[in-house]
Amino acid sequence: MSGDAGIERVVIVGSGPAGWTAAIYAARASLDPLVFAGRPKTVPSTIMPGGQLMLTTEVENYPGFPDGVDGKEMMALFEKQAVRFGTRVMTDNGQNPKLDEHGGHLYTYQDASRVDFSSRPFRIWSDRDELIQSHSVIIATGATANWLGLENEKRLAESGGGVSACAVCDGALPIFRDQPLVVVGGGDSACEEASYLSKFGSRVYQVHRREELRASKIMRDRVLGNEKIEVVWNSVVEDILGDDHVTGVKLKNIKSNETSTLDCRGFFAAIGHTPATQFIEGQVELDDKKYVVLKDPPRSVTSVEGVFAAGDLADAVYRQAITAAGMGCKAAIDAERWLADQGIE
Amino acid sequence: MSGDAGIERVVIVGSGPAGWTAAIYAARASLDPLVFAGRPKTVPSTIMPGGQLMLTTEVENYPGFPDGVDGKEMMALFEKQAVRFGTRVMTDNGQNPKLDEHGGHLYTYQDASRVDFSSRPFRIWSDRDELIQSHSVIIATGATANWLGLENEKRLAESGGGVSACAVCDGALPIFRDQPLVVVGGGDSACEEASYLSKFGSRVYQVHRREELRASKIMRDRVLGNEKIEVVWNSVVEDILGDDHVTGVKLKNIKSNETSTLDCRGFFAAIGHTPATQFIEGQVELDDKKYVVLKDPPRSVTSVEGVFAAGDLADAVYRQAITAAGMGCKAAIDAERWLADQGIE
Repeated sequence: MSGDAGIERVVIVGSGPAGWTAAIYAARASLDPLVFAGRPKTVPSTIMPGGQLMLTTEVENYPGFPDGVDGKEMMALFEKQAVRFGTRVMTDNGQNPKLDEHGGHLYTYQDASRVDFSSRPFRIWSDRDELIQSHSVIIATGATANWLGLENEKRLAESGGGVSACAVCDGALPIFRDQPLVVVGGGDSACEEASYLSKFGSRVYQVHRREELRASKIMRDRVLGNEKIEVVWNSVVEDILGDDHVTGVKLKNIKSNETSTLDCRGFFAAIGHTPATQFIEGQVELDDKKYVVLKDPPRSVTSVEGVFAAGDLADAVYRQAITAAGMGCKAAIDAERWLADQGIE
Repeated sequence: MSGDAGIERVVIVGSGPAGWTAAIYAARASLDPLVFAGRPKTVPSTIMPGGQLMLTTEVENYPGFPDGVDGKEMMALFEKQAVRFGTRVMTDNGQNPKLDEHGGHLYTYQDASRVDFSSRPFRIWSDRDELIQSHSVIIATGATANWLGLENEKRLAESGGGVSACAVCDGALPIFRDQPLVVVGGGDSACEEASYLSKFGSRVYQVHRREELRASKIMRDRVLGNEKIEVVWNSVVEDILGDDHVTGVKLKNIKSNETSTLDCRGFFAAIGHTPATQFIEGQVELDDKKYVVLKDPPRSVTSVEGVFAAGDLADAVYRQAITAAGMGCKAAIDAERWLADQGIE
């Protein structure tokens, strides 16, 4: 169905809310999109099928699901919808994705590992070194929250045991109400998260390794003036305690080397995000934090004509499933119109 | 729960995808939002509870519903989710919205008819002249598609009989595949719609009352160079034919006054949209087409600090449920952070 034999009209890299929404819109626009959905890996900054929501047990704020929805289930619904309209997905066994009855993948998806946007058609190589050529590309590989890297952190995040990297997503959950909560970090985002969580928790401890917050003055003032927030200076979290649920953290004062235990029922990592943009570095303009620069927001156009971006890799502010999905829709509409302008139907 | 007695922290005007999503996020941020959901009216440019989707039978492109969802049902889900987290809605009988088991409203909602943003707290009057004061406001009243105003047009639009004002939303529906389709309009949007529909229909007739398209050159060229599109010049649609489904349109050539019948299976109105911004005119900066101007996109800030905008009334380009919902989320997050900056918790 491509305009030229062997050349795709639109390739989408990424399979979170932005990627699948772009696929839904591109497929309905008869662009016959091909998706690199990513491959589960343990190293940071790579694409995982389904994106960050695969780590989320309960999503309460994606509109349309008044009783909440499991993150994995939600992404399976998105994928099913994209596939229903004809989206193809790069797999190790060809391009025919199938989901089993639990929404699990019957095939292993491929990741995009390298691109060349310096000439047209664009070239994208899979991590099995298969070459795909395409007239347009939508990059939607997201960003991953940075974690401390503790084993108990990972375990309790994945089990919904009170560990999170998103206060706006999870702060309102009943398990955190009127409970002591710990936030780790000292930047603007950490202060935003602490401030936000102070609405819910009985007390918020913001643990920071330095002697002062590196956040902007307005955010520092907001935190330091909030009587529900206590900043724990010069300290790091060495472990998160609790079997099924967070019961406390083990702190270490890095000046005195003293360790202590702080009781809490929630742990929020707020030490930044890493956009999954390594594979496009040098090809598409990135900002100093490696986010893709949108050249004409709210449009999805990047520094390369014909390359569009959607989702958390181009959004350091909101990072919600619903905002990422909205960006995915825009990228598909922008790509469709751009292709039509180029006479590629 | 307000910071000051009798003063709301955030009032949301509008109850489409943007309004309810803003309410979901604001409620979960413990801002205790109050929504003016609007009142059904027959005059144009007012707010209808649920927004434009209430006129849509089947929504296939809102991510998360792989089998599609009825527009009314979808908006009932959004509302239920907002109310679940504590959103209050202005009704004629107090502020306790309830939905019956079919998603219908047991109370009549109030509209916002007048605002004063020139002093703080902001003032908003309901159409029953009740005065509400608020520290911040999110405007999400949407935009309505302009229609020809024919009785059969309204009837067939509401019954899903092949009349639509959104090619991106509805063009991919099976009923339009390989069928002759009619688009009315001569601007950029009409050309976009005709071009988009040419992927699906057997033939697209673009009916325009003038002798030339007023669209930009690139869009004119795209339409005139597309062999599946035929422009019917100097003509107007006088009626839409068909009982359960569009079977044709009655055309009149306004130069010769001759009438004729054109067989088709779909009718798309593409004669512009009217943003529902009359009630804020003179208070918030609007562009020449009366859309709200966003001062720092993709953020939701308007010309008035503390007033945020979301949805189709600030988006002349994408106008999708998913993009409007994304904007609603941003507006709530922006409002929450602005209120925190002001020390209003």
